[in-house]
Amino acid sequence: MNYGNFSSDGKEYIITRPDTPTPWINYLSNSNYCAMISNTGGGYSFHVDPRDRRILRYRYNNVPMDRPGRYLYIRDNHTSEYWSPTWQPVLKNLDEYKCRHGLGYTIIESLYQGIKAKITYFVPLDNDLEVWIFTLKNTITKQKEISVFSYAEFCLWRALGDQNDLQYIQNVALTSFANNTIYYSLFDRSTRYAFFSSSHQINSYDCDREAFIGPYHSESNPIRVEKGKCSNSQALGGNPVAVTCTDVILDPEEEKIIIYVLGVIDEKNNSKGLIQKYTDQKEVKLELQKLSTSWDAYLDAFKINTPDKNFNLVLNVWNPYQCRTTFDWSRYVSFYETGIGRGMGFRDSSQDAMAIGYVYPKRVRQRLLDLAQNQFEEGKVYHVFFPLSGKGTFPEYANKERLFFSDDHLWMILAVSDYLKETGDMSILDENVKFVEGSDGSLYDHLKRAIEFTKNNLGNHKLPLIGTADWNDTMSLPGPNNASESVWVGMQFHKALLSLVEIAEKYDHSNDAISYRKIAHSMKEHINSTTWDGDWYIRAFTDNGEPIGSKICDEGKIFLNTQTWAIISEIAPKDRAYHCMDEVRKFLNTEYGLLLFDPPYTKFNPELGGITTFPPSLKENASIFCHTNPWAVIAECMLGRGDLAFEYWEKIAPTTKNMMSKIHYTEPYIYSQMITGRDHPKFGMAKNSWLTGTAAWSLKAATEWILGIRPTFDALIVDPCIPKAWEKFQIIRWFRGALYNIEVDNSKSLSKGVKELRVDSKIVEDQLVPIYNDNKTHHVNVLLG
Amino acid sequence: MNYGNFSSDGKEYIITRPDTPTPWINYLSNSNYCAMISNTGGGYSFHVDPRDRRILRYRYNNVPMDRPGRYLYIRDNHTSEYWSPTWQPVLKNLDEYKCRHGLGYTIIESLYQGIKAKITYFVPLDNDLEVWIFTLKNTITKQKEISVFSYAEFCLWRALGDQNDLQYIQNVALTSFANNTIYYSLFDRSTRYAFFSSSHQINSYDCDREAFIGPYHSESNPIRVEKGKCSNSQALGGNPVAVTCTDVILDPEEEKIIIYVLGVIDEKNNSKGLIQKYTDQKEVKLELQKLSTSWDAYLDAFKINTPDKNFNLVLNVWNPYQCRTTFDWSRYVSFYETGIGRGMGFRDSSQDAMAIGYVYPKRVRQRLLDLAQNQFEEGKVYHVFFPLSGKGTFPEYANKERLFFSDDHLWMILAVSDYLKETGDMSILDENVKFVEGSDGSLYDHLKRAIEFTKNNLGNHKLPLIGTADWNDTMSLPGPNNASESVWVGMQFHKALLSLVEIAEKYDHSNDAISYRKIAHSMKEHINSTTWDGDWYIRAFTDNGEPIGSKICDEGKIFLNTQTWAIISEIAPKDRAYHCMDEVRKFLNTEYGLLLFDPPYTKFNPELGGITTFPPSLKENASIFCHTNPWAVIAECMLGRGDLAFEYWEKIAPTTKNMMSKIHYTEPYIYSQMITGRDHPKFGMAKNSWLTGTAAWSLKAATEWILGIRPTFDALIVDPCIPKAWEKFQIIRWFRGALYNIEVDNSKSLSKGVKELRVDSKIVEDQLVPIYNDNKTHHVNVLLG
Repeated sequence: MNYGNFSSDGKEYIITRPDTPTPWINYLSNSNYCAMISNTGGGYSFHVDPRDRRILRYRYNNVPMDRPGRYLYIRDNHTSEYWSPTWQPVLKNLDEYKCRHGLGYTIIESLYQGIKAKITYFVPLDNDLEVWIFTLKNTITKQKEISVFSYAEFCLWRALGDQNDLQYIQNVALTSFANNTIYYSLFDRSTRYAFFSSSHQINSYDCDREAFIGPYHSESNPIRVEKGKCSNSQALGGNPVAVTCTDVILDPEEEKIIIYVLGVIDEKNNSKGLIQKYTDQKEVKLELQKLSTSWDAYLDAFKINTPDKNFNLVLNVWNPYQCRTTFDWSRYVSFYETGIGRGMGFRDSSQDAMAIGYVYPKRVRQRLLDLAQNQFEEGKVYHVFFPLSGKGTFPEYANKERLFFSDDHLWMILAVSDYLKETGDMSILDENVKFVEGSDGSLYDHLKRAIEFTKNNLGNHKLPLIGTADWNDTMSLPGPNNASESVWVGMQFHKALLSLVEIAEKYDHSNDAISYRKIAHSMKEHINSTTWDGDWYIRAFTDNGEPIGSKICDEGKIFLNTQTWAIISEIAPKDRAYHCMDEVRKFLNTEYGLLLFDPPYTKFNPELGGITTFPPSLKENASIFCHTNPWAVIAECMLGRGDLAFEYWEKIAPTTKNMMSKIHYTEPYIYSQMITGRDHPKFGMAKNSWLTGTAAWSLKAATEWILGIRPTFDALIVDPCIPKAWEKFQIIRWFRGALYNIEVDNSKSLSKGVKELRVDSKIVEDQLVPIYNDNKTHHVNVLLG
Repeated sequence: MNYGNFSSDGKEYIITRPDTPTPWINYLSNSNYCAMISNTGGGYSFHVDPRDRRILRYRYNNVPMDRPGRYLYIRDNHTSEYWSPTWQPVLKNLDEYKCRHGLGYTIIESLYQGIKAKITYFVPLDNDLEVWIFTLKNTITKQKEISVFSYAEFCLWRALGDQNDLQYIQNVALTSFANNTIYYSLFDRSTRYAFFSSSHQINSYDCDREAFIGPYHSESNPIRVEKGKCSNSQALGGNPVAVTCTDVILDPEEEKIIIYVLGVIDEKNNSKGLIQKYTDQKEVKLELQKLSTSWDAYLDAFKINTPDKNFNLVLNVWNPYQCRTTFDWSRYVSFYETGIGRGMGFRDSSQDAMAIGYVYPKRVRQRLLDLAQNQFEEGKVYHVFFPLSGKGTFPEYANKERLFFSDDHLWMILAVSDYLKETGDMSILDENVKFVEGSDGSLYDHLKRAIEFTKNNLGNHKLPLIGTADWNDTMSLPGPNNASESVWVGMQFHKALLSLVEIAEKYDHSNDAISYRKIAHSMKEHINSTTWDGDWYIRAFTDNGEPIGSKICDEGKIFLNTQTWAIISEIAPKDRAYHCMDEVRKFLNTEYGLLLFDPPYTKFNPELGGITTFPPSLKENASIFCHTNPWAVIAECMLGRGDLAFEYWEKIAPTTKNMMSKIHYTEPYIYSQMITGRDHPKFGMAKNSWLTGTAAWSLKAATEWILGIRPTFDALIVDPCIPKAWEKFQIIRWFRGALYNIEVDNSKSLSKGVKELRVDSKIVEDQLVPIYNDNKTHHVNVLLG
């Protein structure tokens, strides 16, 4: 049931057979240049923005699966037999195969016809290019004469046109070959050059896809590979590719290394230095070393050692690794997100920023300011923005008469709050940021406007109007009155108010604090008096004022989010809190995770809208929508039920999927957006891997709530809520200029409750770990009791 | 050099080898349901609008080329060998192969392993579905046990999402199987059902693409065909397909016929009658007969017999056939136009309507009224509109500060003028039509507003401001002043004014006629005094007032359109007319047609914009842009140079490409949008076949100007301009309720000049053929002299 395993140090996932149920991919990126690569070499690249600067092409959802990619062909010139050392695209059965996805690099190794091949793909830290190091070794006693072909298919820069406007875009490419290098640009040059070069003499090349592949042939059997030589074609219009052919003679046991480099530049001339550097074995080795050091530094900012190996593996490596990817690319570009329409999500990027403030405070600071400039004066925000311009927009499906998403702007408050607690950098609140209309205000002013917007847009039940939708993008609840309301946003609003109260107090705006506390109090009372259904909190009201997620509903009776957030937002009284989470367990718990709600909608309902456009158990129609599961972890931790919390964490943890890949399908080293629910014939199948808020919230739930390490404005809280069976565990964490080495003793087998806390051997009475900012290591000993 | 030939009656193009340079396709359509099919079974289908109601999926610009399609697999159950009787997708070398593209049907025949296969694909006249009639014959002396698989891959209805929004759209499909029929819909059902059924018992089926194809397999080797049986899978989300498996035993010499039917319906239940009818051999034969009768009637409205076989073949069959397709689908949907963004073009549909008024007066009338409702009160029009709603829009690339295309609205006048002359139906001018803003006016009022708009939007040279662009969509001539002007639109404006003068006079609005004649006169004077460059007319002025298409330019010196239209629009004095067309011949004539201009632009020029985003000799940067060539035919006819006119007609005529398909690439039975110019390494390669204004204008040029049959308000003109070598020719044409059998005698070897014209044996003094409207045949004898 498994297609691979983690390396012993956990820093690599090693795939041992090529035919994974979906392409299992890796992101190689310096946050500017990004290359996605699958375990068989499939994938594509872009520069800064996948919509406007797409470099390599990908045929999504293709038959055959996962084409094209960064391909190599080895052709034995004695026998004319050829194969791909990455299995795809030739698909010959290799004698040996292994793919190692590591931190910022991927290595694919194989053996066929006595030739050992190893390709290391990576993107260096400081240049916008990708490197393919191709090591060939002859393991037999006979000399081998081979030709090596490299293949990369360019996208015509503008990814949308490349898919949809063929009659135009198929007439704009221009290629050239000079100094052992293929250059490609659009004729109008406004979008720069791509170049492809090699450490070895290119004997022949092709720049025209059709000339290389041949009519009615495919990547599996290119006509030029069959013939053993390229045709030196140029693309003038049509489909540009970078194909090179290099002849290699390998004596018995001889090893040769060919390095390929593919990148983007402003001017052809500027490629010279880059090519020189990245085709030099020593330099490339050095760059790989720098990459490794950089990722180690990233991971070293938070390290744990608990009795649970999966927990350690996920928290120490793969969850933070995925969080860097979601921070960089939001929900914009993957093998399932085509990097065209969506852009970077406002709510998504806000949440992504909440997970990595401890390690990337500067980048988070900038992102928060970038986000804020997509706010309108009235307080609402654009739903998405684009990385090249930073400018936002509403998606086409947005409801023109309800042109806001009711949660978007509120996430900004929560994200800024987290940043402030992590860094103590109150100066960010004074930063002057423009509104969409052109006027400006401090970031603090922006936060206030976010509150104002929700306050000014309440409905008949005095709950926030849902607008186009809330966090659930498909909960559109259309209707002529534009009157549908979100209980969940009411809870989020309460949470945002509490956060802004704290900020206002620290920021010496106590009048604001008083006023926001009042609004919060009234919203809390209001939610408790109007949305408690007897056993749980309802989810929303339709345009007609009908409840959703209520006992009186036949379908969509109980929703997860209003139970978890009743607790997270500190709205639920204690008895209701326990009760509603018990109901969650009763109705929504499955072997693969918690359902978004239950029962699924069995038919389309125009009053509910988007949510009922999915068949039961898919996506927002009652799948295990993973993003929401860590909220249950947090809620259970807040209730002190450590074993339950851990169970919920574990159910969707990627590592625990490793032995069930034939059910789970997607990569067992990262989170996916959803897992099909129990009414689907493939119950347990994950979809849309990599780009999901699950990454950020699982990290937060695990580190802040299970492990209980929570920054505040003035100190670090250590208040774990763990499985009773854990006897002890250790956390090393960077916080406000010092390293904290925290050891927790649970010899009494509890879940929660700090009896004693010592820092550097001294008991701390208020159990709050002080801020030192002295660049030293401090030892924290915590005794549960 | 050829891949096929025309049948002896000219009504079929018979392809004799499957590996054509591009997919050679046919449109099977009743103007509602449309199926495109290539010579190897590739292609897709849609219902009314290819954007919103896409039925079958196509992977444009794919590797391998031309996938997927309406596929069949034959599997010999003794040997387990399988193949496709359409060559694709299995690509086995067939013993025999033939594809016959006919009028509204396509037949693919093959022989392999002793099994003769013949598939007839067609769309019936009156139901929205397609039929595949699969005839199998065992030609050997041994019994054959075979399994037959059919394959159709559904698109997820919304074609844009199907390509770009995978994370959503991959979770909405729903299939079911009942009564020997596969049903597919979206869960929200708002877009109806597709069904797929068969005349024979379906032994097993698959609705989930991945279950049928198998991971890392393709259409070439589906895992279920390899196994010999389907898996009865359903799609719940994912990729729906209609795959069926039927077991067939064929005795020696036995023939069996399996009929497949694929269509769209509102409700599942409504499919029963359709399936019953279209799986019945007799009924299907009857429908095929009706289809044939209908196309014969279409073609019978205009028939010619001249000494030139190619001319006859193009005019009698393929040019009108293509004109029906462009009228139906404008530039919206083909193998190169993805049927997503562009919609139906305003200018395109106006011109398409000008070609088929003689045969489809009612449809043209409706189209003209539909077009007019996309006009704004100020007179400009939306650039495109969508068939489902009839509603228009501007494309995204439109210049927001110049939100109009300067030619669009003027085409409406020319199209209405043609309609009036063809039909005499002046009542259309009284039809009340809404403007975009909601107010309304008569169609005549709409025409007047079109004139007003251009009159009110003149630039510094008193020529029409170009707006976003003119007929040349890439001649954007951007700049801060929004001041660029089009000489060509000035000419078109003059032509539109003359047309409206005629209309106004007939419509008893003589004051309008007087006023428009004045404007026309002044525009004519003005163009002649400011845009004659000494040897030809310049093309435009940039935002800075610099001329384009002038002798002072290094590139883009002479443009075809302002020479041909100087004559067509009756602006050029006689001496200038001959001179500028001589210059056209000198500078723009090539072996494959007339260049759009010369020399090509060799680098991007931001002051010219779009036109310089193409490398030289591609698209609007000095290719042979075919649409413009018939204008040269018309101009030469107006100048009386019949041999020259015919040479220009012949150069781009599809039939003349038949023996040079390895150079021409696209279908030799229809026109393509462009042919690469002489600076391209593949000079003579055509691109973007089928949807082009070339179809309509070639038909007009040939019939109205070479043959010289031109309707007027009160009569039919017969005034040919032919090659001198033609001794005689005959035309049969329907006009105003009577059939005219016209015979022209050119025994004096002239090009032009009617000496004598007789109708029903009587000499007609004014040489105008009268309107009879008596449903009879009238004999017209014309003597050139």
